[in-house]
Order: sequence, then structure tokens, then C-alpha cells
Amino acid sequence: MQSTQQHIEARLKLAQEIALEAGAVALDYFNNRDALVIETKRDPQDVVSIADREVENLIRDCVARSFPEDGFLGEEYGLIAGTSDFIWVVDPIDGTSPFVNGMPNWCVSIAVLSEGEPVVGVINAPCHSEIYSSARGMGATLNGKVLTLDDTRTIRNSVTGIGANNYVTPAFVASMVEDLLASGGNFIRNGSGALMLAYVAAGRLVGYYEPYMHAWDCMAGFCLVREAGGWFHPFLTEGERLTKGAPVIAAAPGAIEDLSRIAGLTGKAAA
Amino acid sequence: MQSTQQHIEARLKLAQEIALEAGAVALDYFNNRDALVIETKRDPQDVVSIADREVENLIRDCVARSFPEDGFLGEEYGLIAGTSDFIWVVDPIDGTSPFVNGMPNWCVSIAVLSEGEPVVGVINAPCHSEIYSSARGMGATLNGKVLTLDDTRTIRNSVTGIGANNYVTPAFVASMVEDLLASGGNFIRNGSGALMLAYVAAGRLVGYYEPYMHAWDCMAGFCLVREAGGWFHPFLTEGERLTKGAPVIAAAPGAIEDLSRIAGLTGKAAA
Repeated sequence: MQSTQQHIEARLKLAQEIALEAGAVALDYFNNRDALVIETKRDPQDVVSIADREVENLIRDCVARSFPEDGFLGEEYGLIAGTSDFIWVVDPIDGTSPFVNGMPNWCVSIAVLSEGEPVVGVINAPCHSEIYSSARGMGATLNGKVLTLDDTRTIRNSVTGIGANNYVTPAFVASMVEDLLASGGNFIRNGSGALMLAYVAAGRLVGYYEPYMHAWDCMAGFCLVREAGGWFHPFLTEGERLTKGAPVIAAAPGAIEDLSRIAGLTGKAAA
Repeated sequence: MQSTQQHIEARLKLAQEIALEAGAVALDYFNNRDALVIETKRDPQDVVSIADREVENLIRDCVARSFPEDGFLGEEYGLIAGTSDFIWVVDPIDGTSPFVNGMPNWCVSIAVLSEGEPVVGVINAPCHSEIYSSARGMGATLNGKVLTLDDTRTIRNSVTGIGANNYVTPAFVASMVEDLLASGGNFIRNGSGALMLAYVAAGRLVGYYEPYMHAWDCMAGFCLVREAGGWFHPFLTEGERLTKGAPVIAAAPGAIEDLSRIAGLTGKAAA
């Protein structure tokens, strides 16, 4: 019988393979995006295309062939329950808005949860030829190079990523921007939360804060950040919670307290 | 005797050549950035490295060899007056913060002014292998493909770029974010104002607003946006004004009025 570790390693290997294949398909859509039909979802700024759906179908089919017993949650088609302890949590294209507008900041995000915890996290940013890969206890890598966070980085000497959507009010977003800047921080928002979480794992951003994200946006990034030596605020994934949104904070050690305070959460206790 | 148009075309050709060479040198520094010594300027978030200075020296030397009579204004070393009607306005690396932190959103920005107006604008984004090129009356291109803005795009169905620095208060930045979101807009901030202006010319962003920028950050982008069919708010460049900062707004036709209003300027009259 396989150990839990062997189960995780087998899924890491598949996640890496799928991320490469899905990234190549998505990149092909991106390079031919003039032909894409763009639809909107909750509001005119929340866009989706056939590329999102096709890539999710591709990933789900690959998982079902190798691990038919695993559950699967994708952004576009929702949750399919499984019979094993594992649930794949996938955003086929995170950063659809940059994608459909021709900007390179988007990625394929693939996580595997076990008992609600991300045990595998793989992110492929095809426009940058970058593969971020991680699994519980096995560390995080970028194109094979081990990622280890620097304890001396803070929000004051580094850049913080932020994100938002219309689940929160303009006044709330303005307030978080003002707090971050007034605390000596600086921000970018590249349009892909999953990619910015990968940047936290890579030490490019010292942290990431978005007041409302879904599991498919953040689980792969969480695994990467934790395995690189960072922290993330607990994100509930039990039962119904898995498909609901929640605040996301992920940070290098020196930014936990500041970002938790800015997000109105207690960083010290959580860390 | 050469016509003004011939003078401009000769400088466009040189700007394209220099942008390629400078981009290659900057990319080499970027790929070896672990060895870079980072210094700070006005505040801990305002960084500079030897790469900025070396690339500016390279560009200035190239210009001086071909057009010793032209003036030159660079971000790192300031203004050198010339005797011709032309002034080169250069940011060797726009987006130094992304650059030193390992993010790909930075560019080399080269403009030439004639009588205070940008007549040449070339931007090279080396991590994305993209060259944006424009000259007065000659249109704008991205990697040789002609750029033409779409009149149907507005802040409500497209993405707007924003930027800020500590010349303006956190409350001011918060206010512009709140106004933009409350007006149905959405924003990115990728860390390079010049690159986001190039994205406006390419139709990837519908507009760009930053409350305080210098000429070296925006002149190449302005030329690109105008030549693609867009608009920019007048930016004074006479005499001493050339080295001072001012608000920057650039937009596709359908976003002029909204962005001018958000910036507290009258868009209709200016357009």
C-alpha cells in the first residue's frame, strides 16, 4: 500500500505534467486571442472565454484518467465530489482579464488538497516560461531552483501585491491601499492573484492581500508560499466552505504582522 | 538641407537601434540581478541600481555620437542642453522596482521632443520581446504591427492602468482608486508607467492615470498613444518645466472624459 507521501508525490508529478500541457494550450489561445469570444459573468469586468472552459476540461479529463477517485473543483464548472482524501482545485486561467486584453500576467493554477490543506501547488506562467512547483514537506521551486524567503524583507523595503473584485466596495479597496501606503508599503496589482502569490513564494513580492478570493485562486499559491518559508492566513475549506470566498493574506515572515494588521486580522496570533 | 520629417525619421531609426541595444544590456543585468547593489533615492521604495546608470550612459553616448547637437534628459543624470531643436528624453529602466525584485514589467523608454512635443517614442520591454515604436505622423507599431485604438472601449468594459509615488499622499491615491472603481472601472498597476502607457497604445489598457510623473516616464508613451489614435493631457515641457513632474493622463477616445473627471481635469475641453 502506498504511503500518504507517495500519494502526494504521484499527484505532484501529474500536476506538473498537466500544468505544462494546459499552459501550452492556453498560450495558443492567447496568441490567437483576436478570435476569442469574450463573455461576462457577474459584471462587465468579470470576463470569461472559451479558453478558460477548454483548459479546465482538459485538466479535469487528465485528472480523471489518472486519479478517478479524487474530487475536482474548477473555477468554471464547480465541484465534483470524489471518494479519496484528495481534491484537485484548479483555476484554468487565473488573470482572465489580462489574458483577454493581451497582457502577459496570467497563469494556470493547480492545487491538490488533502484534509483541507494544500499538499500540492503548481503554477505555470506561460508568457514568462516560468513553472512554480511545490508539495508538502518537499519545498518550492521556480524552474527547478529552490525558493527560500528572506527574513529581512518587510512591506517597507519590498513590494506588496494586492487584488480586489466587486465582492468588496470601492471604499474598502481604497482603504486598504491607503493603509498600505501610509505604512510605508508600495503595491502592484498585475491582474492575476495566483501569479502574485507565486511571486510571494519567489521573494519578488513580500506579501499578497486580497479581501475576497476563491479557493481556486489561492490554494496552489498557498502551498508555494508555505513551502518557501512563508505564511498564509487560514482559509477554510471544509464542506460547503470550499466553494465560498474568503480573505487571502500570504506573506514572507517579516510582513506577516503588517499585512495582518492592514487586513484587520491578528497576525501575531496566527503566525 | 533635410526636412523636419527627415530629421525625425533619422532619430526614429536611431531610437529603435538604441532601444534594442539598451534593452539587451538591461536584460543581462536583470538576469544577473543577484549581484546588483540596490540603492535608494527619495525614500526606501524609490530604488536605483548600477543597471539604470550604465544603461543611461550607453544611450547618451550613442545619441551624442550620432546627434551631438541634440539635448539629452535622462532620469539618472539630468539635462544636458543641446543646440538643435531636438531633446532626447530617456528613462533607461522604467520600473526599477519590478526590475530589482525580479518581475518582468520594466522597459527602456526613449523619446525625442521637438518644440516641446514628443515626435519619436520607442519603448522596449525585453522580458516580453516587445518593441513599441512611433513617430509623429507615422503611426505606432508593436513588433511591426500597426496599432489602432478601438473607439468602443471605455473604463467600464476595459482595464485602466494607474501609478503613484510618494509625491502624492496615500489618501490621494486611495481617492483615485475609489473613484475609478465606483465609476465601473478596474485597474492594474504593473510597476512601470512607461510600459502601461505603451499598453494604452496597444489597446490592452483603455487609459493610464498617474498624478505625478516626470517627462522621462511618459514622453515615449505619449507619442505612442497619440499615434495609435489616443489622447494625452497636455504636459508642459518648456524650459525648467521639462525636469518637473506633472499629472499624466492618456486614454483611448472612449475613456478621455471619465479619466479626466477622475483626475479632476476637464476632459471634454481638452479632447
